[in-house]
Amino acid sequence: MNVIILAADEVARSGEVRLTGTRGRHLTRVLKVKPGQEVRIGFIDGPMGTGIVTAAGDDAVALQCTFRDTIPPRPRVDLLLALPRPKVMRRLWSQLAAMGVGQIMLTDAERVERDYFGTHVLAPDTYRPLLIEGLQQARDTRLPLVSIHRRFRPLVEDHLDGLFRDGVRVLADPGASRSIGTAIAGVANDRVLLAVGPEGGWNDFERRLLEQHGFQTVAMGPRTLRTDTACIALLALAHDALSRA
Amino acid sequence: MNVIILAADEVARSGEVRLTGTRGRHLTRVLKVKPGQEVRIGFIDGPMGTGIVTAAGDDAVALQCTFRDTIPPRPRVDLLLALPRPKVMRRLWSQLAAMGVGQIMLTDAERVERDYFGTHVLAPDTYRPLLIEGLQQARDTRLPLVSIHRRFRPLVEDHLDGLFRDGVRVLADPGASRSIGTAIAGVANDRVLLAVGPEGGWNDFERRLLEQHGFQTVAMGPRTLRTDTACIALLALAHDALSRA
Repeated sequence: MNVIILAADEVARSGEVRLTGTRGRHLTRVLKVKPGQEVRIGFIDGPMGTGIVTAAGDDAVALQCTFRDTIPPRPRVDLLLALPRPKVMRRLWSQLAAMGVGQIMLTDAERVERDYFGTHVLAPDTYRPLLIEGLQQARDTRLPLVSIHRRFRPLVEDHLDGLFRDGVRVLADPGASRSIGTAIAGVANDRVLLAVGPEGGWNDFERRLLEQHGFQTVAMGPRTLRTDTACIALLALAHDALSRA
Repeated sequence: MNVIILAADEVARSGEVRLTGTRGRHLTRVLKVKPGQEVRIGFIDGPMGTGIVTAAGDDAVALQCTFRDTIPPRPRVDLLLALPRPKVMRRLWSQLAAMGVGQIMLTDAERVERDYFGTHVLAPDTYRPLLIEGLQQARDTRLPLVSIHRRFRPLVEDHLDGLFRDGVRVLADPGASRSIGTAIAGVANDRVLLAVGPEGGWNDFERRLLEQHGFQTVAMGPRTLRTDTACIALLALAHDALSRA
């Protein structure tokens, strides 16, 4: 944990908070904090700040918190992801939040197994702590927005313009020659939406529909990657390109 | 599996091979191959080729193989990695091979737990099938070379020049400002060696020693990533920069 994430209702008006559970154990056992020590804290979707340890022991820690005036900006890359199998998705949540993603839209596709949508990996009670774990790793407070779409076509045709208004839409495709850096170059203040298909790829209809709705195909080299590896690689390239745009 | 990887001694002189086990099951149950069908094959560290199914059934498949004349080039990025905990390392093997890495040097560091070196995740019998799984995913045949170094200083001072002769050495560091793309720009025919530290980072001595041995520090943005996420992100950026160099 490189920052301790707090929910707004955890902190008293006086600025005091008492941490038990995972965070309390982490502070006492891993960081071995002592009274007087400072730890990095942050509010979910709010500012970062500093907590001064006022008491520590028995896997519990009391902090006196102060927060900055500014809130970290939302990561400028969004993800449209064909739902991978539950084991992969479970692993991805924290990694996506750590890499930095503004919103995660999970969608069906022909090559997605229908029963993946019934899994508890898609329950907020499951994924929210995993997303927060990623934020705590990466020192961010901006929780990715999550939406789940069981039907691909209505998502793309009817809902996508509302979910992702202005920005560049890209689609990794083995046949493409343009690099993601070229596609993103010069989008100084815009957002980027990355579409990542299922293991077997989008089918022709899905790829065409995405292209008709403004997605530019970009190359990702000759290697075929597993969904989770591809997401991380694409997010790294997109953030890198945005930092140079 | 996007290519079926074969060991040299599996294929008869006549070009025939009979696959059982994981590969046989994958061909019969997932790809549902029928006689006459072609599948992509490759020799470990050798050429890719085509196998024509001559018989299929009962989780076993016979192929008649032909191979190309050329061998895929070895990926031009190498990795010097402070050994992560076994659970993370187990997951990394196939992802590293899929991303493309010429050699993997695993090293000790102050913030690496000593007992990680005793784990069976470092046994060739464990990691070799996982590396091959990554090659089969990414359609490559070049098995990463693996070396394990229990002492950091002799590795860097005495062995590194032999293991990595010519090329650019980079070290991801939160304090750096140069991007990995800038560090790699213009190394048209060279190799790149990426150093990735332990979860808590290299200590000052280790960082200095790497810098004294030619490692340039490069920035990776403000986010602190877990080892496995950082490796994939850095490999993506290094390959991308090389493709543009």
